[in-house]
Amino acid sequence: MLVVMQQGATDEQIQRVIDRLVSLGFTVHRSTGVMHTVLGGVGPVEDMDPADFEVMDGVKECHRIVSPYKLVSRHFRPQGTVIKIGDVEIGGDHVVTMAGPCSVESREQIECIAAIVAAQGAKVLRGGAFKPRSSPYSFQGLGEEGLKLMRAAADRHGLLVVSEIMDHTQLPMLLTYADILQIGARNMQNFNLLREVGRVRKPVLLKRGISATIEELLLAAEYIMSGGNYDVILCERGIRTFETYTRNTMDVSAIPVVKKLSHLPIVGDPSHGTGRRDLIFPMARAAVAAGADGLLVEVHPDPDHAASDGAQTLNPAQYAEMMQQVRSIASAVGRSA
Amino acid sequence: MLVVMQQGATDEQIQRVIDRLVSLGFTVHRSTGVMHTVLGGVGPVEDMDPADFEVMDGVKECHRIVSPYKLVSRHFRPQGTVIKIGDVEIGGDHVVTMAGPCSVESREQIECIAAIVAAQGAKVLRGGAFKPRSSPYSFQGLGEEGLKLMRAAADRHGLLVVSEIMDHTQLPMLLTYADILQIGARNMQNFNLLREVGRVRKPVLLKRGISATIEELLLAAEYIMSGGNYDVILCERGIRTFETYTRNTMDVSAIPVVKKLSHLPIVGDPSHGTGRRDLIFPMARAAVAAGADGLLVEVHPDPDHAASDGAQTLNPAQYAEMMQQVRSIASAVGRSA
Amino acid sequence: MLVVMQQGATDEQIQRVIDRLVSLGFTVHRSTGVMHTVLGGVGPVEDMDPADFEVMDGVKECHRIVSPYKLVSRHFRPQGTVIKIGDVEIGGDHVVTMAGPCSVESREQIECIAAIVAAQGAKVLRGGAFKPRSSPYSFQGLGEEGLKLMRAAADRHGLLVVSEIMDHTQLPMLLTYADILQIGARNMQNFNLLREVGRVRKPVLLKRGISATIEELLLAAEYIMSGGNYDVILCERGIRTFETYTRNTMDVSAIPVVKKLSHLPIVGDPSHGTGRRDLIFPMARAAVAAGADGLLVEVHPDPDHAASDGAQTLNPAQYAEMMQQVRSIASAVGRSA
Amino acid sequence: MLVVMQQGATDEQIQRVIDRLVSLGFTVHRSTGVMHTVLGGVGPVEDMDPADFEVMDGVKECHRIVSPYKLVSRHFRPQGTVIKIGDVEIGGDHVVTMAGPCSVESREQIECIAAIVAAQGAKVLRGGAFKPRSSPYSFQGLGEEGLKLMRAAADRHGLLVVSEIMDHTQLPMLLTYADILQIGARNMQNFNLLREVGRVRKPVLLKRGISATIEELLLAAEYIMSGGNYDVILCERGIRTFETYTRNTMDVSAIPVVKKLSHLPIVGDPSHGTGRRDLIFPMARAAVAAGADGLLVEVHPDPDHAASDGAQTLNPAQYAEMMQQVRSIASAVGRSA
Repeated sequence: MLVVMQQGATDEQIQRVIDRLVSLGFTVHRSTGVMHTVLGGVGPVEDMDPADFEVMDGVKECHRIVSPYKLVSRHFRPQGTVIKIGDVEIGGDHVVTMAGPCSVESREQIECIAAIVAAQGAKVLRGGAFKPRSSPYSFQGLGEEGLKLMRAAADRHGLLVVSEIMDHTQLPMLLTYADILQIGARNMQNFNLLREVGRVRKPVLLKRGISATIEELLLAAEYIMSGGNYDVILCERGIRTFETYTRNTMDVSAIPVVKKLSHLPIVGDPSHGTGRRDLIFPMARAAVAAGADGLLVEVHPDPDHAASDGAQTLNPAQYAEMMQQVRSIASAVGRSA
Repeated sequence: MLVVMQQGATDEQIQRVIDRLVSLGFTVHRSTGVMHTVLGGVGPVEDMDPADFEVMDGVKECHRIVSPYKLVSRHFRPQGTVIKIGDVEIGGDHVVTMAGPCSVESREQIECIAAIVAAQGAKVLRGGAFKPRSSPYSFQGLGEEGLKLMRAAADRHGLLVVSEIMDHTQLPMLLTYADILQIGARNMQNFNLLREVGRVRKPVLLKRGISATIEELLLAAEYIMSGGNYDVILCERGIRTFETYTRNTMDVSAIPVVKKLSHLPIVGDPSHGTGRRDLIFPMARAAVAAGADGLLVEVHPDPDHAASDGAQTLNPAQYAEMMQQVRSIASAVGRSA
Repeated sequence: MLVVMQQGATDEQIQRVIDRLVSLGFTVHRSTGVMHTVLGGVGPVEDMDPADFEVMDGVKECHRIVSPYKLVSRHFRPQGTVIKIGDVEIGGDHVVTMAGPCSVESREQIECIAAIVAAQGAKVLRGGAFKPRSSPYSFQGLGEEGLKLMRAAADRHGLLVVSEIMDHTQLPMLLTYADILQIGARNMQNFNLLREVGRVRKPVLLKRGISATIEELLLAAEYIMSGGNYDVILCERGIRTFETYTRNTMDVSAIPVVKKLSHLPIVGDPSHGTGRRDLIFPMARAAVAAGADGLLVEVHPDPDHAASDGAQTLNPAQYAEMMQQVRSIASAVGRSA
Repeated sequence: MLVVMQQGATDEQIQRVIDRLVSLGFTVHRSTGVMHTVLGGVGPVEDMDPADFEVMDGVKECHRIVSPYKLVSRHFRPQGTVIKIGDVEIGGDHVVTMAGPCSVESREQIECIAAIVAAQGAKVLRGGAFKPRSSPYSFQGLGEEGLKLMRAAADRHGLLVVSEIMDHTQLPMLLTYADILQIGARNMQNFNLLREVGRVRKPVLLKRGISATIEELLLAAEYIMSGGNYDVILCERGIRTFETYTRNTMDVSAIPVVKKLSHLPIVGDPSHGTGRRDLIFPMARAAVAAGADGLLVEVHPDPDHAASDGAQTLNPAQYAEMMQQVRSIASAVGRSA
C-alpha cells in the first residue's frame, strides 16, 4: 500500500494515516520528498480498498501494490496451464474449437450440429439448456432434457460438452452431463456461484462480463481457484462500448494481456463478441492471430430459424469455411487448429 | 418491426424478408420509397431480435417498434405507483431515506446506527448480511445472524429493513427478516432470481447494473412484475464510465427518464454512485432535485473502521448534515424529506 | 514517480530503472519490501509518462505523484476564483445563467431571444456563429454577421456575449464581438487553440470533451492558464456512455469534483448534457443543487423550427419556468439565481 | 425518416408530426398498426436530427433511414478504392506498413529510422513535427525543421512521408513536405480542418477519435470527400473503454465493419491502439488477420529515450520481428506485406 500525501499535508494528517496503517498490521516506511510525503505500508492485509485512505484528510492518492490475485498470476505457474480433458488439451499447441447452437432445441437439431462440427474438427460441443433471456417472454431453453440430448449427441461424435450453469443449485445436474461448466458473462461476479464451482473438480469456462476489466476477470478466476479448482479457461466475448454497429466490442487485446498476466488458457468468442454473423470470420482469424487458445462459435443448421441468437450464428457451410481460414492463421502462428 | 432495405436491394431479397416475417406470424406492409423499400411487420411476436433481420442480405437496418416492456411502462399506470409498507409510502410526496451500514458487523454497531438514522428521519434501515466481495479473501458478511440483528434493531426504532438477496435459495430467509428485498447491481440480470422474487408478495429494490442501460433496468423490473409482484422500486447507483476519480458515474438523468418512461418509484444511491464520502452531500442534493423518490445511503458510527465500503460511508454527524440539506432541496421541489 | 517492481525482479532490472530515473534527473529512494521493491523518484521532470517505465522488464506498475496540473489546482488559490466581467461575477454567490439559441439565425430571432432571457434574469447571451456540424450538408452558421447581430442584441439588453471560437485564426474576430470565448467539447484538446486563447486577456468557457476525464479537462485549462490567461470557466456538458436514451450522460458529480480539485468556476449545460428538452428542468435543478456556478441553456422562440439542436432547446415559457425552479434550488443551497 | 407514434397517440399529435414533415419537404406515408401508427417520410432533407421529432408529443421514436453519408459508402464504389501514390498502392493486395518515430527529434534519429524501416519493407515513413501533448510543459516537436529532416530521410530511402497536420493554417507547409496528410484522433471532428484538406488533392490518413463511433468516422471522411478529395485512408487506433491495462482498446472489428460499409482502405495502429510495446506484435497480427490494408507503427532506435510515446514504440530488432510475423499472417489471408 502506497499512500501519497497532498502537498502541504500537516504532520497530524500524516500521523493519522500512519496510525491507521499500523492498526491494520502494516509496517510503515515514510519518505519525505520536496513536495510530497509518501507512506509505504507492507503488511499482511491484502484486500484493503485504496479508497478508504483516499478519503482521509491530507491524502492525495493511494495505490495497492500487491496484486489482488495470486493463483491466477503468471508468476504462480510461469510455464502456463494446459487443461486436459480426455485427449483434448486446452492451452497447448492446438487451437481448440467449441461449436454448437446457442440453445439446444431438439434431438434432430443437436445431432445434426454435432455431426457437422465434429467433421470439421471441433473438439467440444457447446449449447445452452437454460437460456437467461433479457425478455421474460422469450424462449427459456429445454432444461435438463436439453442437456441429455446434447450429451448423447456429443458422445456419438466423440465431442466434449460445455454448457452454462446459471445457478449453484444446478451444479449436480451440470456435473452429470457436462465436461466443462460455462459461467456466463452476467454471472462473472456471481460470487456464490464462483465459490461453488471452485469446490468441484471439473473444468470451468469463465466468460468476461460485458463491462468487466481484465483484472476483474482474473479476480473472478481467483475466486474459483481459491476453492481448489485450478482448471479455469477464460473467454473474451466482447465488452460494451459506445459503438453501436456491433453488439459488443470484442477486445482482442485482452487475449495477449491475459497470456501475459496469467497462466490460464483463454479462448475468443466471435459470435457474442460481435453479434453479427458477417464478422465472425475476420474476428475468429484475429483472435487466433493474437494468440487465443481456442474459439467458441455458434453454429446452427438453419440460423434464420434458430430459437435464439440466429444473427450471430454460422450455417454449416460457413462454419467449414471459417475452420479453413482459422487453420491457415493458426499455422501462421505456429499452431494447429 | 420495421425493416429498411438497402438501396438497390433486389426483389428476391425483399421477398425473402417478407416470407420470413410472414412465417413468424407478422402481417407485412410494404412501402416503396425513392431510395429504400420499408417493410412494416405487425404481429404477435414481440421479442424478435432486430439483429436477426439485419444480417439478411439486402437489409439495411431493422427497428423493433413495440416496447420490450409493458407492465413497467408509464402507459400501464399513468398516475404513478406508490408502494405502501406499513405507514411508509415510497413514490409519494415524501422523499424516503434508507440508511445504514454496508455490512452488519455486530449488535452494537447496527443498534447504534438504527438509533441514529431513525432520529434523523430515515424510514428504512439498510445493511448487508451476505457480502459479495470482488476478492475471495475479503469479509463475507454475518449471514443470517446479521439479518436477525438488523431486524431487532429496526424493530426497536420503528424502521423497515431492506437487505440484499444474493441468490434464490436465500428467499425464505430474507422473507423472514426483511421488508424489502434488495437485488444488487451484479444480479440485475440474474433472471432466475428475478423470476423467483416475482412470485412472492414483498417489495423489491432493484439496482441498476453498472453497465446497464435504462431500458435494461426496466426490462429487469418487467421480469419481476411479469410474475405478479408489482412493488418494484428502482435504484440508480452509478454506471461505469472512463472517469476514474469517482468509482462510478451517478447517472442523475436516469431519475427523470425513469419517471417519464415508467410508473415505478426510483431512489438514488450517492454512496455507490460516487464511491466517495465527500461527494455524497452534493449528489444526494442533486438526486432529490432531479426528482428521486428516495435515497439509499451508507452510514456507520466509525466509517474508518467499517468492515467494507468505508470510503463511501458517512459518520452520524455527516448523516445529520446531509438530511438537513436534503430537506432543504426536497422543500424546494415541493416535497418533504 | 513511484515505480513498483514485480515480485522476483532481478537486481539488474532494478538497477536499470534506477539508472533511467537518475539519467532523467530524479533523486531515487529505494525501499525493499517483503514482496516488492519500490523506487521513489523525486525530480524536476513532471510530465513523464508512467507507461515508459511500465514496459521496462521487471516493472509491475508506475505512478506519477505530482499532479500534472498546477495553476488550476485548488491548492494554487484555495479561496476559489471569481471572474468579473463588467458587473457580472462568475464563481460567486449568484448562479449565472447563459442562455440563447444554438445558432444565431437572424436579427429578429436573436433580438427576440435576448429580450426574453434578459427579462428572466440571464446575464449572458449565448449563440453560435460558426456551427461545426457532424454532417457536411448541414447549416454551418451565419459567421461574422451572426456575431454582429448577437453583439447588438446583447448590448440592447445589457447582456454579455459568449460564442464559440472554432479555430485560432478566428481569434481577432471573436475578440471584437464576444465577452467570453467558448471552446467547444471537440476542441477541448486542440492544443494550438488552447495556447492562443491563453495569450489573450479575455475569459474562456472551456467545455469538457465527450470522452474526457476530469483530469484531462483540468489539464486543458492548465494549457490556457499557463499562457497567462487565468479567467477560465469550466463547463460540464455530458460524456458519452452506453446509455442511448439521452444523447450524453451529464456527469453531475464532475461539478463537486472540480470544485474540490480546482479553484475555477464550473457551469452545467443541461441542453447538451441530455440532448432532450424534457430533461433540461430536472438536470438544471440537479446541477445547481450539486454546486454549479452557472448554467448554459439553449432557448429559441420556436424550437421546432430552430436551425439546429431544436430537440434540446426550450421555448420562452419553458425557460421562464426553468428559471423559477432554478431560483428555488439556488436558494435552498444558499445562493441566488 | 420513420416516425413511430406512441400507443394511444392522438390524431392531433399525429397530424402535427405529419404537418412538420410536410413543411420540411417530405412526402408522408401513414400506416396504422394495431398498436402504433408509423409515419414514413421520404424527402430531400437528409440531415434531419431524429431527436427533433422524438421530443414532440405523442412520438415514441424516430429513425433516419437514409445513411448520413454517401460518398464514403461501399455502394458508391463497390469494387473498393485503391489509392496510388507513386508506386505504392494502399487498399490493394499488399499490406502497406507506415513506420517511424512518434516525433522527429534529429537528423541522425530520422535518418537511422528511415534506413531501418525501408530495409524491412515499410513503404511510408511516419513522424510528427508538431506534437499536441496533453501537458503544456512537454516537448512540442521540431516544427518545419522536423518536416524537412523527414522529407530528406524519406527521399534517401525511397519512402513516402506521412505527417500530422494540426491546423488548417499548416496546410501549405504540409503540402510541401508530406505525401499523406495525417489527421489525428483529436481532430477527427475538426470540421474546418476536414473541409480544408477536402479542397486539396493529396491523400489523407484520417484517424478515428477515441470516442468516435464507426459512423462518425465515416461521416468525417465524407466531409473530406464532399470537397472533392477522394483519397482518404481510415485508421483504427483504439477507443476509450473502461479497461485500464491498455491505454486504449483497439477495436479490431472496426476493420471488417469499415470494409463492409465503405470502399475506403483502412489501416490499424497497434502502437496507439494499445499504448504498450509488448502488445504491438499480437495486435499487428490481429489487424492484418482481420483485413487491414496496412499498419501504422512507431519505431525508434532507442525507445527508452524517445522524446514521446516510448512505451508504445518498437526498437529496430523488434520491428524486424514484427514484420516477419505480419508477412506470415498476410500470406495466410492471401496478401503480401
